[in-house]
Amino acid sequence: MANHDKAKRGIPPKADFNAWYPAIVEIADLVDKRYPIKGMDVWRPYGWRAMKRIDALTHAEMERTGHDEVHFPLLIPEDLLEKENRLVALLKAAREAGVDPSELRMDEEPAGFKKEVYWVKHAGESDLDVPMFLRPTSETAMYTMFPLWVRSHADLPLKTYQIVNTFRYETKQTRSFIRVREIHFFEAHTAHVDEEDATRQIEEDLEIVANIMNDLGLPYIASRRPVWDTFPGAWYTIGIDVIMPNGRTLQVASCHHYRDQWAQAFDLTYEAEDRTTKHCHQTTYGMSERLLGAVVGMHGDDAGLIMPPSMAPIQVVLIPVAAHKTEAVMETIHEVNNRLKAIGIRTHVDDRDIRPGQKYYDWEIKGVPLRLDIGPRDVENGNAFAARRTGGKHPLPISDIESYVRSELTEIQATLLKASEEHRTSIVRFANNLSELDSEGAIFEVAFCGTDADAEVLEKSSGLTLLGEALEPFAEPKPCIVSGEMTTTRQHLARMY
Amino acid sequence: MANHDKAKRGIPPKADFNAWYPAIVEIADLVDKRYPIKGMDVWRPYGWRAMKRIDALTHAEMERTGHDEVHFPLLIPEDLLEKENRLVALLKAAREAGVDPSELRMDEEPAGFKKEVYWVKHAGESDLDVPMFLRPTSETAMYTMFPLWVRSHADLPLKTYQIVNTFRYETKQTRSFIRVREIHFFEAHTAHVDEEDATRQIEEDLEIVANIMNDLGLPYIASRRPVWDTFPGAWYTIGIDVIMPNGRTLQVASCHHYRDQWAQAFDLTYEAEDRTTKHCHQTTYGMSERLLGAVVGMHGDDAGLIMPPSMAPIQVVLIPVAAHKTEAVMETIHEVNNRLKAIGIRTHVDDRDIRPGQKYYDWEIKGVPLRLDIGPRDVENGNAFAARRTGGKHPLPISDIESYVRSELTEIQATLLKASEEHRTSIVRFANNLSELDSEGAIFEVAFCGTDADAEVLEKSSGLTLLGEALEPFAEPKPCIVSGEMTTTRQHLARMY
Repeated sequence: MANHDKAKRGIPPKADFNAWYPAIVEIADLVDKRYPIKGMDVWRPYGWRAMKRIDALTHAEMERTGHDEVHFPLLIPEDLLEKENRLVALLKAAREAGVDPSELRMDEEPAGFKKEVYWVKHAGESDLDVPMFLRPTSETAMYTMFPLWVRSHADLPLKTYQIVNTFRYETKQTRSFIRVREIHFFEAHTAHVDEEDATRQIEEDLEIVANIMNDLGLPYIASRRPVWDTFPGAWYTIGIDVIMPNGRTLQVASCHHYRDQWAQAFDLTYEAEDRTTKHCHQTTYGMSERLLGAVVGMHGDDAGLIMPPSMAPIQVVLIPVAAHKTEAVMETIHEVNNRLKAIGIRTHVDDRDIRPGQKYYDWEIKGVPLRLDIGPRDVENGNAFAARRTGGKHPLPISDIESYVRSELTEIQATLLKASEEHRTSIVRFANNLSELDSEGAIFEVAFCGTDADAEVLEKSSGLTLLGEALEPFAEPKPCIVSGEMTTTRQHLARMY
Repeated sequence: MANHDKAKRGIPPKADFNAWYPAIVEIADLVDKRYPIKGMDVWRPYGWRAMKRIDALTHAEMERTGHDEVHFPLLIPEDLLEKENRLVALLKAAREAGVDPSELRMDEEPAGFKKEVYWVKHAGESDLDVPMFLRPTSETAMYTMFPLWVRSHADLPLKTYQIVNTFRYETKQTRSFIRVREIHFFEAHTAHVDEEDATRQIEEDLEIVANIMNDLGLPYIASRRPVWDTFPGAWYTIGIDVIMPNGRTLQVASCHHYRDQWAQAFDLTYEAEDRTTKHCHQTTYGMSERLLGAVVGMHGDDAGLIMPPSMAPIQVVLIPVAAHKTEAVMETIHEVNNRLKAIGIRTHVDDRDIRPGQKYYDWEIKGVPLRLDIGPRDVENGNAFAARRTGGKHPLPISDIESYVRSELTEIQATLLKASEEHRTSIVRFANNLSELDSEGAIFEVAFCGTDADAEVLEKSSGLTLLGEALEPFAEPKPCIVSGEMTTTRQHLARMY
């Protein structure tokens, strides 16, 4: 079913990223954008397998950290929002009472996200009594149920997650995986006995992020977002931004520490060991199909995708290279294939009746990390000829093919990770003063401790966006880029997707 | 998070199936029905793991048979239905022209399912130009794309499937897994060069059904549905009905042979080897979370669920039985656990600080097929004490615990399958004449070759529903139960869910 027109195969150079990206996601058979709703692509088998491999990394991390997988309904009745409105009211009252504004990062417009949801107001031939919306994310749905599940401290921490479809009525230009209207979404929601335990959860989330980014070979920056970019009802939000090849950043994940703000609105309490009733402290952690967009964008090249072995749907493609598929060659191909499968390597034998050059070209586009060619001479010599998608070719002895292939994949993974670290180093620059914030395609690290007004100056004068505070401050104080005051607060400025 | 009130734990006797079923799905922590939309339950971790194990059986069958997994958008624009309306018109015209009515099983009301869908007509603050609906199933979405994917005979057969959420605005009483409004759904859609190849696909589907039903230990009947129960646009529909404990049948799957009827409406053509353009022949095959409902209903007993080892989220639970969790006992428990995990068995160590009796009770409710108790004396004797959920207890030598546990699980699986075959035998009875169709809780096998009018007589006089023609006719002709004419056509009558 992979019969794209050959004419479509012209891949724009990656240097022209805005042309390359939307082309390669279709040329490599990840998605089909011709479905008649803007921003809702069809996942083709290869793209879906890639996404599921990334999900598998997430599931493994969730299992390691003791999160339970749940699955909530897609539809949320509008009247559940009353409790969210209560949250807004609570926060507003606190603000009016003069509470520290850093704790009040709630959008004061009740349920401002209503502008971005799809509504279901009709079913069959009836008008629904209570309109419902398609989940943009599941706080409201879940926090309606959590009070039924949490009774005492023994039920805590409650660590749940789900991987589901979420929806956002995007009015901006859509882009496969990056800005879509039906989103393949991961969300973890937890409840804890106190602020401190919720903070430990955020630390665990950041460890999970680090593991997954390492698996995918993605260069990223974690930042505590400025007040105005904090999630509604959160004490603070940490955004995870991948550094794309063109120097723009792509937020692929975020973690929110809610303290007990949502718990107050949703009456989420527990009986403590001392028999008193307390509010839970909560966190959420979200990631999305943007991870795949980042993998596509970061690793691909002029010839197509490059899939990191950690998540490649096919890690090794085996290709017979012989004028005729001789029995000896095919026998060896299948033997090697079976041995690799037996140790859990994801392989594919390409025995199509087309010339090997065409096959090379196809698998390059799809980014299979390792190709093994076997021809009659290789069979005689007891070798398979290995070509890495990241460059480099050499023979591997078939006698011990398992360990050789394993180490090839490890090295390809390391090559991608190294390239990603180099990319980060080449893109992120320290800027001492505002006049230095002018290079195209750079991300700037600055010392900045200013007010919201100072931040506005900074963003306006540079045309860049403040990602927020880096989690590691500077070791030594430096002069703030706007006020000149000495500070250890490290912040990043970038152009965001 | 499994803190149900103890008061809730009172399980009704299974003999009172209508009380037992809705109680046990919550008591065993499969779902929580308190989500504020009727027919949309929250999947709790244990229920979701059970469903995913069933999905894993399906994925394995799809891989074995060379189906590719795709993932289509949830939303379908209403204007895509124009092509379905064309299908209706085509069929109507053919009917008027006097074509064999057995080939015209289309509901003549255009898109009659509109009465059962959820509509999205608003997004954000806008009215949508084209209303959309939540997929009840994906023919329309997929067959809009298939013509873009199929060009020549080389692209055929096209064999795709997806596992997704689908929606139906049920007005009848809802029941967890059995009749819900958001449905966890499997659907395979294929396209073929001709009717014969599509027929082979239906045969393959029935083989897959047989494998999965065998894995789940479910007794079933496959029937070619009567004309009036044929899926819109299908040449014929085969329904797969599980025989529930109370003798009612539950349709858990269906296969449809479309011939080229949908292909004509959707312009799905290919270039044949002889360069002519031909219409594809198509099939679909659907299953749903009803499979889990059938597992719950078929195998459970007064003490709770019984999960077949093939799909049990936990196959073996290990329980230390000692006044204090002595080091020696816990060491042995963990050793056995690690050895079982190493061979791929799904285990759980219950080291909670409660008495063993309470643990037995909990795992009985959840239907874990095998329990291994290990106490200080067992450690001395080198044994683990095994208790099957299906009955029977005996010691197993720890020295070779892997093979003993494997054979225990195999025997439990066989016990469930045998019970299911016996259930089938006890429920299905041959009836010679209409007066015999009166036993409560029985399913009747009859010789019946009548017209639609005869079928109506049959259904009305018995109060039962005709499941349709069994795939294997009688070896010898018998008199038709209505007309008395000799026929080999075997049909079943039952009360359906």
